[in-house]
Amino acid sequence: MGSCINHPDRETPYICMKHQIYLCEECLECRDPKIYCKHRSACPIWFMGKRKEGWEAEDRQEGAATTHTVTFLPDGETVSIPGGSTLLEAAQTAGIHVNASCSGKGACGKCKLVVVAGEVGTAPTPLLTDGEKAKGYVLACQSRITGDVSVQIPEEVLARKLKIAGMGQTVTNRVKGLVTEIDPMLQEIPLTLAPPTLDDSVSDMDRLNRGLKKQGVDVARLNVGIKIMRQLAEAVRRDNWHITVSVIRRKCANEILEVRPGNGQHPSIGLAIDVGTTTIVVYLVDMADGSVLAATAGHNRQADCGDDVINRIICAERDGVKKLSRMALATINDLIGEALDSAGTKTDAIRNVVISGNTTMAHLLLQIEPRYLRRDPYIPTVSEFPILKAGEIGLKANPMAAVFIMPGPASYVGGDIVSGVLYTGFHREDPVTLFIDIGTNGEIVLGNKEWLMTAACSAGPAFEGGGIRWGMRAEEGAIERVTIDPQTLVPVLSTIEDAPPRGICGSGMIDLIAELLKTGIVDRSGQFAGGLDNDRVRRQGDEWAYVLTFAEETSLEEDIVFTASDLKNLIYSKGAVYAGFSTLLGHAGMDFSMVDRMIISGGFGQYLNIEKAVTIGLLPDIDRSKFAYMGNSSIVGAYMALLSSNYRQEARMICSNMTYVDFSSNPRYMDEFTSALFLPHTDLKSFPNVTMAA
Amino acid sequence: MGSCINHPDRETPYICMKHQIYLCEECLECRDPKIYCKHRSACPIWFMGKRKEGWEAEDRQEGAATTHTVTFLPDGETVSIPGGSTLLEAAQTAGIHVNASCSGKGACGKCKLVVVAGEVGTAPTPLLTDGEKAKGYVLACQSRITGDVSVQIPEEVLARKLKIAGMGQTVTNRVKGLVTEIDPMLQEIPLTLAPPTLDDSVSDMDRLNRGLKKQGVDVARLNVGIKIMRQLAEAVRRDNWHITVSVIRRKCANEILEVRPGNGQHPSIGLAIDVGTTTIVVYLVDMADGSVLAATAGHNRQADCGDDVINRIICAERDGVKKLSRMALATINDLIGEALDSAGTKTDAIRNVVISGNTTMAHLLLQIEPRYLRRDPYIPTVSEFPILKAGEIGLKANPMAAVFIMPGPASYVGGDIVSGVLYTGFHREDPVTLFIDIGTNGEIVLGNKEWLMTAACSAGPAFEGGGIRWGMRAEEGAIERVTIDPQTLVPVLSTIEDAPPRGICGSGMIDLIAELLKTGIVDRSGQFAGGLDNDRVRRQGDEWAYVLTFAEETSLEEDIVFTASDLKNLIYSKGAVYAGFSTLLGHAGMDFSMVDRMIISGGFGQYLNIEKAVTIGLLPDIDRSKFAYMGNSSIVGAYMALLSSNYRQEARMICSNMTYVDFSSNPRYMDEFTSALFLPHTDLKSFPNVTMAA
Repeated sequence: MGSCINHPDRETPYICMKHQIYLCEECLECRDPKIYCKHRSACPIWFMGKRKEGWEAEDRQEGAATTHTVTFLPDGETVSIPGGSTLLEAAQTAGIHVNASCSGKGACGKCKLVVVAGEVGTAPTPLLTDGEKAKGYVLACQSRITGDVSVQIPEEVLARKLKIAGMGQTVTNRVKGLVTEIDPMLQEIPLTLAPPTLDDSVSDMDRLNRGLKKQGVDVARLNVGIKIMRQLAEAVRRDNWHITVSVIRRKCANEILEVRPGNGQHPSIGLAIDVGTTTIVVYLVDMADGSVLAATAGHNRQADCGDDVINRIICAERDGVKKLSRMALATINDLIGEALDSAGTKTDAIRNVVISGNTTMAHLLLQIEPRYLRRDPYIPTVSEFPILKAGEIGLKANPMAAVFIMPGPASYVGGDIVSGVLYTGFHREDPVTLFIDIGTNGEIVLGNKEWLMTAACSAGPAFEGGGIRWGMRAEEGAIERVTIDPQTLVPVLSTIEDAPPRGICGSGMIDLIAELLKTGIVDRSGQFAGGLDNDRVRRQGDEWAYVLTFAEETSLEEDIVFTASDLKNLIYSKGAVYAGFSTLLGHAGMDFSMVDRMIISGGFGQYLNIEKAVTIGLLPDIDRSKFAYMGNSSIVGAYMALLSSNYRQEARMICSNMTYVDFSSNPRYMDEFTSALFLPHTDLKSFPNVTMAA
Repeated sequence: MGSCINHPDRETPYICMKHQIYLCEECLECRDPKIYCKHRSACPIWFMGKRKEGWEAEDRQEGAATTHTVTFLPDGETVSIPGGSTLLEAAQTAGIHVNASCSGKGACGKCKLVVVAGEVGTAPTPLLTDGEKAKGYVLACQSRITGDVSVQIPEEVLARKLKIAGMGQTVTNRVKGLVTEIDPMLQEIPLTLAPPTLDDSVSDMDRLNRGLKKQGVDVARLNVGIKIMRQLAEAVRRDNWHITVSVIRRKCANEILEVRPGNGQHPSIGLAIDVGTTTIVVYLVDMADGSVLAATAGHNRQADCGDDVINRIICAERDGVKKLSRMALATINDLIGEALDSAGTKTDAIRNVVISGNTTMAHLLLQIEPRYLRRDPYIPTVSEFPILKAGEIGLKANPMAAVFIMPGPASYVGGDIVSGVLYTGFHREDPVTLFIDIGTNGEIVLGNKEWLMTAACSAGPAFEGGGIRWGMRAEEGAIERVTIDPQTLVPVLSTIEDAPPRGICGSGMIDLIAELLKTGIVDRSGQFAGGLDNDRVRRQGDEWAYVLTFAEETSLEEDIVFTASDLKNLIYSKGAVYAGFSTLLGHAGMDFSMVDRMIISGGFGQYLNIEKAVTIGLLPDIDRSKFAYMGNSSIVGAYMALLSSNYRQEARMICSNMTYVDFSSNPRYMDEFTSALFLPHTDLKSFPNVTMAA
């Protein structure tokens, strides 16, 4: 028995075994999270979302439970835990991340472990196959500890961890060196203050400010909340005036978010997140040296509400914006969890976050009303976001982590484009540059260090695989290169990571159309020629199709084909993009010859064949040396902004310097679009270097 | 039946009759206040702290309730309300403030009304006398409406309202003109924005910033939270781009706290609050013109924990600082309620607050750890406070009201002294001024526009009535002037508001001691001479006493006396103050002849006899024209800071420019104190103009 930490006059048997903290029954029943806040930051039970369950009556504990040892292989970490606890609780106590999407309800089947020595009491579950059960697999959340036990983290989990960490290494090679001076939003400042004396009797807060000033913090612009003031006297004295102060740097004023005793070094982790309409990418970054510890990517679960931003907004209007926010957060937080897991780091260490996404994604994620984005005159609620806290928006990170949202100038040109420009850096240079980001939509920026114009063209998601029978994004097993033998019409395919083909991604489709055109399988108007005596070109349903692989060549049960409808969709997309280029240039009083450089960004993976993209009329027929392909530029810009306050400042400058040109009411755009619905274009004079087969 | 506003898919019969909003059972049961936030600002039920009770099943309503009319006299306001509602609910619906400290539980007995026509169903209560019941008195919260009814607000309540308002008028006469340019922390800015078009498609937030900029708001330093961003799109559009924006001005960055539709004018009310150790004073101020609408004062309920700050701190250490905070808040909020009531204004209209109090009071009120205030080396946690929100600290005001806490330089020289200096203004002028505030303690400031020194002397609460048998603060019935006939030894007394005497306040005690000395009843060493053949001077217990009034002259059952112990306490107090003067002057290398002006402030009420204060050696024997008596200067400084940002800035300057001199380790102070334990002093040469009777 002991005193409830909230009601010292109440005796209670309920104790948190880890923290030796007592709570009375009323507090255990109370849904108010504030009840828990006194030990919230320390207590894993609180974070597990399990409240009453985590607290056991002491006498029950004493009667039933002896303590057992759980060993986690392959690393051999051990933890002592009372009998009756689950393996999941043991893992959490040991600080080992086990994927448990359903928070330990036994519903997701992800927390698989293999028992290699000792026994556990398991509940029956349909989520393990008989084969798995025979090998000793259990669900950690459904296994209660009855004695000492050794468990193995399954090899497939370890392999995935290695791969995610390996992706981090690949990314590090790409991005390291982009930022030389690391300068996070939320800074952790270790201080040792001189204890007060009668001759130096300034207040604790003034003493703290004096210490911060010596470290170069602008204390004249420093705010502090009442919570910090309430904790300050104890915090500074507990470790004899050794403290660590967390200071967030905002547009104008800074703010002290935490003062904690002790000033040892702790790892500080950052997140760069690219929230795409289709794909979300997360980089887990070591804020000390900028290396990327892990990189993960996954499908935005909002896709259940439609492929494009318009359908997402419609869904938010119908079901509430919170639903869409939760869907995106579910994907993001899972990806963060995977990345943390492979890096062996804890959520709490994440103290800086940059999120880059288009304007709709940003509004939905933050639960900001999106309905006016899609209604004439297409007005975003917010362009430039203040620095938020992770806890305010539900991100899996330290709740006080600083979150910078990339600013976006217009409803259809968002923070992802600003981020891309930031990465390419052409806004700092003389050459006139045409920048295109082809994702679920196409956004164009034209300009140089003196001016920037931007526009969006409704390219649709075809290049990311949307609306294409076998379309997929640029991931393992995607066909990314295609050549077709002009005689046999048999294709030679390359897939990402040389995996068995599962579909075709954007760069593969560009290759494929160029080859179909060159070999005469399709003509300039985008029609299948037909009448060819070849099993690769056939009628499928009521339309023509080209067969990329036969089912027997793959582990799939169907042939991978590219149909006339797929081709039509892609021609619309590439026409929209090309029309965007020419309309924006026209608006600026320029033509393609005046473009010094052309930067292509988008989800094409590692590879994009520029020549073939020109061949199909997606890109203009200009000097090939002017082209540069940048891959996903949005995530790299986010990474740069994560590490550098100069880059965050620059992102804001780019956003406010952009002039947005609206195509929705522009008749020239429709003309240009119609002309671009040929391969490569109705006006062949503008494509002098493209050789036609026909 | 209708849809729950939180769960549109759930049909529910529970409806808020006022707002026609439905809630499902789960939401009604839920303790989470966020459930209510959608109509929180509008719904009186929410504010009453009555949740489920305020929501009735619609069919029950339809069956039982017809609507009745309740008329409130003398003003004749009427309201239509469903049968079964209480008179308290009717009053709240009508916007009539009825004092209900217990929130309508029938426990406090304060919500008395008189039924003058019609009937109500009342529950039995012991809180009304038979006489009251015979006159038609009921408790509003215990009376259910069964038909049309007229109720009268009792005359004693109306009389008290008039008096509080009258005090406001008196105060207005005193303070009006102190501030010429009104400049609140929380500004209400009405705006009409140009609706967006395709050619002017900036985000809602940018449009808002543009509007604010035109009004002179520094938008580069403007912060905004996620809550505002989430509500913004609807708020600007609901009344066709007419909005009112609440902007708080902080040290560096400003912040938008609310954007609401419509831009009509609403009354804006401010509070100046002086939180004394003994007495709390509240001014309710019209922010439009600075007039004081009502002024209330009452005893700080913390007095249950001891008379002085040391005992309050000990109590906070033992029982937790929250308890002391709640005690002070209970007093403050009651005083605010009374003031609002007499001014006919609502809590929500209070949007600016300034609180002035000593360092201990400020720490306790804000629940900041006070234990180090009383421990060598006497360190406050905070000297200069950020601007807080009323909701953060539990103040009865609009939750987002801006709260400025007067900064205080040291543990024993607090914001009340800074506030007093601000009012007197000597920190802006050339003459060297000695300022003393005699409240529960004595604090001294010495200086002019070039330098300020300050110190505290442990004068104790005697001048506020603490530790004095019949001591009381300067309120109705306090003896404030005394002369004693040298022949008969019979006193002539004046009381505050000429009420029957109830005790003696600080100015009365000063008069009394001077008279006792002049008439030889006591000698210079502070001893009763004794041996006088007079019924006014007698032994009482084992000590001498002087009788101020006999029981038969008053409505009291005892004589009002002044004992030898009382005298000793007061001599200690006045000695501590005088020693403070001389020690601080000595520290500055000065003596009394170099003081150009002496300002006395404190709880002496309207009156202080300077000559007699010199006679007893509380004040130095210098040219009488140098003295000025200012009354309660802390509340006036708070009033000035409430209205003017220049004065708030000046308060911060005063605080940071003060050099604190610690007397606790100063041997000179002890010497000076010992010498001052005579009447007027051991060294009569320093009091050449004081004539002794002896």
